Amino acid sequence: MAKVLTSRSENYSQWYNDLVMKADLAENSAVRGCMIIKPYGYAIWENMQAELDKMFKDTGHQNAYFPLLIPKSFLSKEADHVEGFAKECAVVTHYRLKNDPNGRGVVVDPDARLEEELIIRPTSETIIWNTYRNWIQSYRDLPILCNQWANVMRWEMRTRLFLRTAEFLWQEGHTAHATKEEALQETEQMINVYGDFAENFMAVPVLKGHKTESERFAGALDTYCIEALMQDGKALQAGTSHFLGQNFAKAFDVKFANKEGKEDYVWATSWGVSTRLMGALIMAHSDDNGLVLPPKLAPIQVVIVPIYRKAEELEKIAAKIDPIVAKLKSMGISVKFDDSDNRKPGWKFAEYELKGVPVRLAIGNRDLENGTIELARRDTLSKETLPIDGIEEVIEKLLEEIQANIFQKALDFRAEKTTKVDSYDEFKELLETKTGFFLAHWDGTAETEEQIKNETKATIRCIPFDAEEEEGVCMLTGKPSKRRVVFAKAY
Amino acid sequence: MAKVLTSRSENYSQWYNDLVMKADLAENSAVRGCMIIKPYGYAIWENMQAELDKMFKDTGHQNAYFPLLIPKSFLSKEADHVEGFAKECAVVTHYRLKNDPNGRGVVVDPDARLEEELIIRPTSETIIWNTYRNWIQSYRDLPILCNQWANVMRWEMRTRLFLRTAEFLWQEGHTAHATKEEALQETEQMINVYGDFAENFMAVPVLKGHKTESERFAGALDTYCIEALMQDGKALQAGTSHFLGQNFAKAFDVKFANKEGKEDYVWATSWGVSTRLMGALIMAHSDDNGLVLPPKLAPIQVVIVPIYRKAEELEKIAAKIDPIVAKLKSMGISVKFDDSDNRKPGWKFAEYELKGVPVRLAIGNRDLENGTIELARRDTLSKETLPIDGIEEVIEKLLEEIQANIFQKALDFRAEKTTKVDSYDEFKELLETKTGFFLAHWDGTAETEEQIKNETKATIRCIPFDAEEEEGVCMLTGKPSKRRVVFAKAY
Repeated sequence: MAKVLTSRSENYSQWYNDLVMKADLAENSAVRGCMIIKPYGYAIWENMQAELDKMFKDTGHQNAYFPLLIPKSFLSKEADHVEGFAKECAVVTHYRLKNDPNGRGVVVDPDARLEEELIIRPTSETIIWNTYRNWIQSYRDLPILCNQWANVMRWEMRTRLFLRTAEFLWQEGHTAHATKEEALQETEQMINVYGDFAENFMAVPVLKGHKTESERFAGALDTYCIEALMQDGKALQAGTSHFLGQNFAKAFDVKFANKEGKEDYVWATSWGVSTRLMGALIMAHSDDNGLVLPPKLAPIQVVIVPIYRKAEELEKIAAKIDPIVAKLKSMGISVKFDDSDNRKPGWKFAEYELKGVPVRLAIGNRDLENGTIELARRDTLSKETLPIDGIEEVIEKLLEEIQANIFQKALDFRAEKTTKVDSYDEFKELLETKTGFFLAHWDGTAETEEQIKNETKATIRCIPFDAEEEEGVCMLTGKPSKRRVVFAKAY
Repeated sequence: MAKVLTSRSENYSQWYNDLVMKADLAENSAVRGCMIIKPYGYAIWENMQAELDKMFKDTGHQNAYFPLLIPKSFLSKEADHVEGFAKECAVVTHYRLKNDPNGRGVVVDPDARLEEELIIRPTSETIIWNTYRNWIQSYRDLPILCNQWANVMRWEMRTRLFLRTAEFLWQEGHTAHATKEEALQETEQMINVYGDFAENFMAVPVLKGHKTESERFAGALDTYCIEALMQDGKALQAGTSHFLGQNFAKAFDVKFANKEGKEDYVWATSWGVSTRLMGALIMAHSDDNGLVLPPKLAPIQVVIVPIYRKAEELEKIAAKIDPIVAKLKSMGISVKFDDSDNRKPGWKFAEYELKGVPVRLAIGNRDLENGTIELARRDTLSKETLPIDGIEEVIEKLLEEIQANIFQKALDFRAEKTTKVDSYDEFKELLETKTGFFLAHWDGTAETEEQIKNETKATIRCIPFDAEEEEGVCMLTGKPSKRRVVFAKAY
């Protein structure tokens, strides 16, 4: 069978694009930079959403919905925020079309110009804090713990499916607190939620830490992030949680009376993950045959392919398989018995491999006679023939094993690709040859960070929460440094 | 306690607005016509979404996501569609802001003008059928059964929370079929899904039928609808399912090779319900004390309010209540034990009444001694004192009873407000005095429909599927008619 994907070693970037398209995850649309998420890709995203939503609710958050459009003037109210977000965004200037007087379709009606232009939200801090002003009078109204699942738009020039698109889907949490401590605690809680989700569901190990000042969210006092490592040795920022201090409360005049009756500005956080996680999921685990999905997020966990020639043979197989399907479903395992007759088994094998289904069973005449079934694992590509009796329990255990194995593999890969470097020359060389995460000393200045970025394209991904105190000197300037930070080239 | 709501008899419209605001369902935003759905309102919408999504998946549909923005030229491709949707819509003309040279915030960058303007989707037939062209080659690619949950925008001049807003949330199903019969079957299946949902979950009885030609979706050959009756005697269209024939396939050149190898255009349907359902839910059941929610959609089904003075009393009550809460949760019943100490029980009673919680329990010292608990029903406002032992089973049965009772009440109301009329004078009079649904003969012409609408503001809500064959004459023109249609004033 011809390979449907470019191999990773040949062209990693092309492999990714091929995979996203061929596995029916997403495609480009007629609108520049906007993607179409196809049903199979969306089913994975829905599984992610369901788990994250549960984690948000378990930590006391509620969902709400705020408007898509933001008055232009709102963006200017927080000085840093406007610099970060007002620049590349979609601007609504009119609210009506009319028939073209020359008879060529429709044209914008010049009489329907908005007094103030509206921006399609690139993020919702401004409209939400403008709303919170009316929701908050006293400490009794706090905390507010809201999340929204929404589409947002940032007019990106170079786009890639899932990784960087003009429109993307995400969730954005926006919380309001009476004290700085509580807001900081929330910021930390949510980066931990993201970390747990990435590791336990996506099977993607992540580093947790602070962003440097220059990489912070526009308007934040601190940004925490989770950083994952892709198979090409590049880092991917998978989620961020921001401590916003009182910046947005001051910009939108949101004050509350505390228990002592004194007025103060409200403390804020915001945090989000997006369909970018799909990119991380795909690139962390998949191989030259296609997707490799962690069982906990796979839309189909088990596929069963019958091998037969005549209708009677299929009937006999179905009689054996139907109760197995029912039992697997009752165990909460999603299973598909693909008895469609318009494709050959070989085609089906390749298709489900491409789509990353964790476990594939195949059963034919011989198996029926022997009471066996063939089981193939997507993660290791290994096959074995097993007794059909009790196969459900074997599968249940195997799904857990696959989940753990995929995570361990990614963890080993990251360990192998994490290098301590102390010289800038070594750093530059290894960045090209070995790639991955580099732990190095940095003098803490934005100038040095900028110079390294300009010279190597590597950025500081984070200052890890668990970085050990260690006396050292900045690999570029030789100035003193107290701990190593994580450098990498990044998506 | 002062009434927080205007009464329905005093001013129905004001009552509705009061209720939506005071029960924390939604509020207006800083952007004209765009609402903020508050956490409590959104929780109801999430319950609706969950049930509908399950029903869609049970009937073989998959979710996907298509772009927010639509190229202006797409709207012109289907002649009827452009007339219906191109007129009042939000138009994106630029993709960048820049700092105001005069130092006053940001302004639109005139250099960042789009070559072709983009429209925020008012509905997605055009962008979806433009996509389906690439997905469909042969009958093997059919049917395509996609749904998307999304925000859409129609620039309404007069807006009302949930009922008519510029931006609203909805789902839109878009299916593609090889045959006309299959597409018609799908159109019917989905209006039945909506009808089942309205009646079995929202407890709102609905009429199912065809829209007249002039009320059809722009681009459809037939539109099926469900129509509900509100307490003020006005109708509300709660969901529609459209048979689109081959109109969009022709407009976007979507052909397939059938089993015989002959090319044909693909057959289409689309169907949707929106946050407008929230308006229907609110107006169908609620009273002058607040919301009345059907248990199947209530975010909190049972609230328990402790009556106590001292901390020790609360402790004793909590010790009795905690296992009841645990048991109710294990039975799948959502329950809140409101032991907050910053509000008095009377305030809590009024608050949960306002928010429509179906069952309220109250328990104090005396109850503890007697082994009793006070139970109040939101739908009937009746109270009784019951033994606390076995209260969980009582509640489980009661929730079913309340669900059934709310539906029956709405059904009785509709029966009472449904009138057969044969004379136009009588029709005009009863439309003012009695209101509701009117079953009348109509000659089948758009002119008569239009004249009646202009003279009375009543419209034909639907031609019911189950309308009996009956010889009659049009109440306006006296021309012959074969069946009665349903007239009403409508939202």
